[in-house]
Amino acid sequence: MKKSRSSSKVGLPPGTLVHIGVRHKVPSDLSLIHFTSDKLIAEQDVSIKKCVTALDESNYSWANFDGVENVKEVAALCNTFAIHKLWQEDIVNTHHRPKFEFERSQVYITFKMIHPLSTTTEIVHEQVSMVFSKYWLISFQERKGDVFEGLRDRMRNPEANMRKNGVDYLAYRILDTVVDNYFLSTEFLQDKITILEEEIWENYQKEHLIRIQTLKKQAVLLRKLILPLREAILNISKESPAIIQENTFRYLKDVSDNIIHIIDSIDHQKEHLNSLMDAYNTAGNNRMNEVMQMLTIVSTIFIPLTFVAGIYGMNFVLMPELNWNYGYPTVIAAMVCLAVGMVLYFKKRKWF
Amino acid sequence: MKKSRSSSKVGLPPGTLVHIGVRHKVPSDLSLIHFTSDKLIAEQDVSIKKCVTALDESNYSWANFDGVENVKEVAALCNTFAIHKLWQEDIVNTHHRPKFEFERSQVYITFKMIHPLSTTTEIVHEQVSMVFSKYWLISFQERKGDVFEGLRDRMRNPEANMRKNGVDYLAYRILDTVVDNYFLSTEFLQDKITILEEEIWENYQKEHLIRIQTLKKQAVLLRKLILPLREAILNISKESPAIIQENTFRYLKDVSDNIIHIIDSIDHQKEHLNSLMDAYNTAGNNRMNEVMQMLTIVSTIFIPLTFVAGIYGMNFVLMPELNWNYGYPTVIAAMVCLAVGMVLYFKKRKWF
Amino acid sequence: MKKSRSSSKVGLPPGTLVHIGVRHKVPSDLSLIHFTSDKLIAEQDVSIKKCVTALDESNYSWANFDGVENVKEVAALCNTFAIHKLWQEDIVNTHHRPKFEFERSQVYITFKMIHPLSTTTEIVHEQVSMVFSKYWLISFQERKGDVFEGLRDRMRNPEANMRKNGVDYLAYRILDTVVDNYFLSTEFLQDKITILEEEIWENYQKEHLIRIQTLKKQAVLLRKLILPLREAILNISKESPAIIQENTFRYLKDVSDNIIHIIDSIDHQKEHLNSLMDAYNTAGNNRMNEVMQMLTIVSTIFIPLTFVAGIYGMNFVLMPELNWNYGYPTVIAAMVCLAVGMVLYFKKRKWF
Amino acid sequence: MKKSRSSSKVGLPPGTLVHIGVRHKVPSDLSLIHFTSDKLIAEQDVSIKKCVTALDESNYSWANFDGVENVKEVAALCNTFAIHKLWQEDIVNTHHRPKFEFERSQVYITFKMIHPLSTTTEIVHEQVSMVFSKYWLISFQERKGDVFEGLRDRMRNPEANMRKNGVDYLAYRILDTVVDNYFLSTEFLQDKITILEEEIWENYQKEHLIRIQTLKKQAVLLRKLILPLREAILNISKESPAIIQENTFRYLKDVSDNIIHIIDSIDHQKEHLNSLMDAYNTAGNNRMNEVMQMLTIVSTIFIPLTFVAGIYGMNFVLMPELNWNYGYPTVIAAMVCLAVGMVLYFKKRKWF
Amino acid sequence: MKKSRSSSKVGLPPGTLVHIGVRHKVPSDLSLIHFTSDKLIAEQDVSIKKCVTALDESNYSWANFDGVENVKEVAALCNTFAIHKLWQEDIVNTHHRPKFEFERSQVYITFKMIHPLSTTTEIVHEQVSMVFSKYWLISFQERKGDVFEGLRDRMRNPEANMRKNGVDYLAYRILDTVVDNYFLSTEFLQDKITILEEEIWENYQKEHLIRIQTLKKQAVLLRKLILPLREAILNISKESPAIIQENTFRYLKDVSDNIIHIIDSIDHQKEHLNSLMDAYNTAGNNRMNEVMQMLTIVSTIFIPLTFVAGIYGMNFVLMPELNWNYGYPTVIAAMVCLAVGMVLYFKKRKWF
Repeated sequence: MKKSRSSSKVGLPPGTLVHIGVRHKVPSDLSLIHFTSDKLIAEQDVSIKKCVTALDESNYSWANFDGVENVKEVAALCNTFAIHKLWQEDIVNTHHRPKFEFERSQVYITFKMIHPLSTTTEIVHEQVSMVFSKYWLISFQERKGDVFEGLRDRMRNPEANMRKNGVDYLAYRILDTVVDNYFLSTEFLQDKITILEEEIWENYQKEHLIRIQTLKKQAVLLRKLILPLREAILNISKESPAIIQENTFRYLKDVSDNIIHIIDSIDHQKEHLNSLMDAYNTAGNNRMNEVMQMLTIVSTIFIPLTFVAGIYGMNFVLMPELNWNYGYPTVIAAMVCLAVGMVLYFKKRKWF
Repeated sequence: MKKSRSSSKVGLPPGTLVHIGVRHKVPSDLSLIHFTSDKLIAEQDVSIKKCVTALDESNYSWANFDGVENVKEVAALCNTFAIHKLWQEDIVNTHHRPKFEFERSQVYITFKMIHPLSTTTEIVHEQVSMVFSKYWLISFQERKGDVFEGLRDRMRNPEANMRKNGVDYLAYRILDTVVDNYFLSTEFLQDKITILEEEIWENYQKEHLIRIQTLKKQAVLLRKLILPLREAILNISKESPAIIQENTFRYLKDVSDNIIHIIDSIDHQKEHLNSLMDAYNTAGNNRMNEVMQMLTIVSTIFIPLTFVAGIYGMNFVLMPELNWNYGYPTVIAAMVCLAVGMVLYFKKRKWF
Repeated sequence: MKKSRSSSKVGLPPGTLVHIGVRHKVPSDLSLIHFTSDKLIAEQDVSIKKCVTALDESNYSWANFDGVENVKEVAALCNTFAIHKLWQEDIVNTHHRPKFEFERSQVYITFKMIHPLSTTTEIVHEQVSMVFSKYWLISFQERKGDVFEGLRDRMRNPEANMRKNGVDYLAYRILDTVVDNYFLSTEFLQDKITILEEEIWENYQKEHLIRIQTLKKQAVLLRKLILPLREAILNISKESPAIIQENTFRYLKDVSDNIIHIIDSIDHQKEHLNSLMDAYNTAGNNRMNEVMQMLTIVSTIFIPLTFVAGIYGMNFVLMPELNWNYGYPTVIAAMVCLAVGMVLYFKKRKWF
Repeated sequence: MKKSRSSSKVGLPPGTLVHIGVRHKVPSDLSLIHFTSDKLIAEQDVSIKKCVTALDESNYSWANFDGVENVKEVAALCNTFAIHKLWQEDIVNTHHRPKFEFERSQVYITFKMIHPLSTTTEIVHEQVSMVFSKYWLISFQERKGDVFEGLRDRMRNPEANMRKNGVDYLAYRILDTVVDNYFLSTEFLQDKITILEEEIWENYQKEHLIRIQTLKKQAVLLRKLILPLREAILNISKESPAIIQENTFRYLKDVSDNIIHIIDSIDHQKEHLNSLMDAYNTAGNNRMNEVMQMLTIVSTIFIPLTFVAGIYGMNFVLMPELNWNYGYPTVIAAMVCLAVGMVLYFKKRKWF
Repeated sequence: MKKSRSSSKVGLPPGTLVHIGVRHKVPSDLSLIHFTSDKLIAEQDVSIKKCVTALDESNYSWANFDGVENVKEVAALCNTFAIHKLWQEDIVNTHHRPKFEFERSQVYITFKMIHPLSTTTEIVHEQVSMVFSKYWLISFQERKGDVFEGLRDRMRNPEANMRKNGVDYLAYRILDTVVDNYFLSTEFLQDKITILEEEIWENYQKEHLIRIQTLKKQAVLLRKLILPLREAILNISKESPAIIQENTFRYLKDVSDNIIHIIDSIDHQKEHLNSLMDAYNTAGNNRMNEVMQMLTIVSTIFIPLTFVAGIYGMNFVLMPELNWNYGYPTVIAAMVCLAVGMVLYFKKRKWF
């Protein structure tokens, strides 16, 4: 997997298409769905030429382009539909910040799609860009595979709202699906935090630190991916391009409310993780305290005793105690008293 | 208890009713209060059909629906009163953020009701949604049992303001009661913090950490539950829907002032808990300091003494001191001097 | 001293008078000052009935009511002057947030009066509410004793501005006096912080922690008491009720500037206390470092020496060194060398 | 040096002149500069009476008053020029927050002048107030000595802009000079931080803590002194009093830009000092780590060896090893092996 | 390398040119590019006089001046083009905050150019100022060498947009190139953070602290250099000077979006570095824990054993155990039992 970076564009004129991001080495792939309330035709592996027929105003069309790293095909497709050069540049720059722009009769919106986290523990995300006009919508993805399968299934139902409403409603549904998947990610994160917390309270382990830090990084990443989309959606409402119907704005407001909710949750999780970090550190300190107490108790009891034993191990010729009949038991008894005194002292200070 | 999560809605069209939240496995229950300033009729276990008569403009009505997890009944009830699909979706999503919306002749407001914390130590909350029009108000709760019993009692009094003023005033009284219960929760929290603080100052114990963290989590949760309601109420004033009377806005401002007061208190409590955490950590360090001083004092006094004893325990043939008459008492005296010197040194450095 | 809490109002209709706060068990007390630029009549222990004559437009009046816990008297007095029910509720709720409101011809303002901190170390505060109209001002206090004695003295002077200007000017002077007393509190706090800081730098003691925490809590409390008043005063200027003269606004701006100044100082103090907390912790660590160095130095020098002594304390039959003539002095010399080497090593590493 | 405090004003009517701040025990001193583009007359020790002639519109005048603690003279001077009572109060309150106000034909601005920090390490500041009208400007200082000498020199040059432009331009130049001196202070602070940082990285010393804390306090103080001036200058532009010429606003914007720059630097320095504090603490911990490792290594090697020696120091009659020919060398060899093994183990764990 | 500082300007009248910043001791150098869509003429080492011909409206001109420390040449050049005195002052003050201003027919913008970080590890930056009018643009740099070589190459292409669009488009391209280089710096920083993180997780080393602190300082510096440019660019859009074409605003918005993206990344990096600092500290604590455990285990096992050995090393005449046949093996066995018991105890407490 090769990465091309933002810096590879340094100094190039605006509108120069340079792919930025992870290179997946996939060929481009264009699929097409024509639909009206009456009929729906789905086509795979469409050529760009054929796609132009999508411009026909007799039906709505959704063209989906996978593999934006193939900049030539992106350019060819975009030029066919007179998509602005700057937008083209943003489409192939997969590190772009989510944003919304519109111009005359076209709307451009780019955002991050987060794949479901079923098996993996990493957050896998991908940039999706959409350009739509009154009769067509083109979505650009980094590679094959997305979270819109359910949407496509539902479209096949002639009763579906998507069939009746225009392309702007379809765009809303795509956004809504993406945001619903954000929920999945935060819930997944929440689960992992809850499990981790229980483990930390049970038992202090060094590897918890790594897990806390990893979760924190994931929360920060999620926030960074998601938050700008809200701003973009608010901009849609503020600038209210003519090709978006009145009704759709209301639905978009709902999406934006959901994003606030998600961001709230993530902030909550970050605060939670900070608390866990505090707890972890304090648990570490407590453990150190215990270790030191152990050492101190043992040393404080036995070092003086050893000293006493050392005294009577001295080889002075004249040490009268050594010759006493009860010298040995007396010393042993004194030692026991000393040790018991110490233990009582520690007990009193609640050291164990 | 089963939970259904936000993610279970992924990809569904807007307006699809999917219950989100804890599933209490309770049947739905609809109760009704018709009232004018003259009379008040309360009915239990009303069927949805019968409820339609509430639309009659001859009196005000308050329908209370318990058990929003029964989405079919919710849908049936809502459709009868032409409640917007998106609102229905929010009503059955018990994880929704408090918010206010209005449309033509209906007002929708959703918020969290916090149950009194008498016996339990956890914060038990429940989502309540209200939709009201000029003559009727429908409240939706997650399950039976709420904080409105006092309100219902007061309604029975023909002199009560609620009987004279319209449904919007009733809505205000419901909100007011809910916010009054927020006060209860913060006071409860405050009590627990005060007790905990006294205990921490008295005696350092490991379990205090858990209690600090638990209280912090509760404060954060309370804030998250309560704050958005203020925003919602401010929105009411800003958008001032026609069906709310001029007078009621003033009362709503009072509620919003109360919420600020509560949030102030919670922020205060959070700051307090952070201080406690600091104090706890410092107390832990102080304790470690004590333990280490103990160890150091004992070791520093006895290790050199033991060494001296060790010297005279050596078996060299030629060790003149061993044969001196006063060798033993001299060494013992030297040891005592050394020990006393050490103790004085520690005293001077204020180690004990 | 009994406390009644915010929660005791749960579910009661708005305008129900319930005293909230510390119950001082004092009877109510009403005093009256009638004044024009020509004459001033002060009366003690006035009955509410007699107070009504204050409504007379021939002179200005300042009625002061002590003991708001006597809700019936408050209600009686307020109803006489047609004071709004919600304001009455706020007057007897001594936990209310400082705020300003006005309505037709009456202005309501509530705030916290902080008593001078001469002898005590705790911040003693009391809620004061004022309602004023064109010709009369009623102030409500929790109990007898306030910071307005100087003001009353000055009023007796026929030349005083208070005599010439209207009731709104009197209200400003009351506020100004209260804010001047805030200065006293922050200066008092500042003094205690300065003293504490010097002590901490001189000598690390465990009890400093408690003092830092106590001062921090006082600073936080002061801020919470004072800040909302500024907002209230800004609201006066913004809404500029007609019964306040143009000139008075200017003076109020001055009061609001003073509050900013006070809040600045408190924030400064909080930052200062945080620095002290840091310094305290670091001093604790430094102390621990010292203790550990002491232990390490002593142990590292004597433990190896003791080992050497232990070697020659062994009872092997065949230990040639034991029989050497210079065995003992050689070993002693070697020990001295070892010890000196250690000491030099520690010196080099700047351990002492 | 005596201090009078904000609290000494408690309860006094507005406009009562009470000096607040450090009392320098200096007599008042009034100097005067009359100037037009043609001529400049500077006078020292002017009486207030004579100063009135400054009101003459034939030339511009700059009167400088030193020693605001002499409140009577301040009052006499101010009353001559009809300066507002509240401004007089602020002029003699040297703890006032920087602010700007204007009224009819007079502008009032107060700010803090910071003296150059050449020899001393403390920040010495002084409050300067200016009142100016179309033809005269009066500046009030706490005592003799200011940073305006260069300005006065430059005024003597008939070509100087100050001679040609009005009094408002002079006011700008005074502000500009004051702000330039702020730069000096921040640079001075920066130098001290840089030096301190190098010392900390070189060698951990306890006294660094005090220096970090001192610098932090200075940065916080500077910020507090400087920031409100920006607000004041922004207010000038916002309210744009008529007696300030259009051109001067532009210059004032420049001053305000400089203040932002200075505040940026100070914030940068505060962050830097926080980093140093972190580094200092970590360095302290690292040192503790080292000490503990030393102790652990020595103890872990020698305590077991001493035990072995202790074994063979026991006086049992039947200890066969003691009589072996090679008993002693064997034990010594075993001890060496044990010690070497320990050392290798510590090496492997990178303990030294 | 000599530095002149902001303070060297204290008290000077506005518009006095004083160089502030690092003095590179380089002569000034002026190069010129005349261009229309038809032709392009590049000249090196142009005299200021000759440069005046650039004012000719027959073509666009880009004059680049290196070495702003030569204030006389800067003044001469600026005066020729009637550039405002205050701007001249800012051009030679290389510590100026990025800003934008315009006046009549000229636009002034100053910002920081960051050189690519290929070999060095420090951030090398330089202030660039641009003044442009309808037909000419003058850029001022601190010394020779910039990031615009690619731009100049591209200009040679007659098809380049820069040739067709006006001077404002050229200004945009210069800004764009500078911002692209900011990306390089943040990526460079990101790489270093990633490497450092891996090393920290692998192995705790003291020098990591220095590296974390260095990276943090670099991130803070980058932010300080970059952020104000965004504000400046927003001001361009807000004030929209007439000489900038409608189209260019759109491109500028793109630049401003890029800066947000960069600032986002830097903030992310700062948060990351804070996490690393936490991790570093915790790793240090964990290490200390390990060391202490080691010490405690060894001491706790061997100190009691040594004591036992000490007992039987005592020289009492009457110690019956010493004469038992199995005394020695019994004691050894007891010691082994004790040691094994200890080890099991530590195992149970998971100390190793």
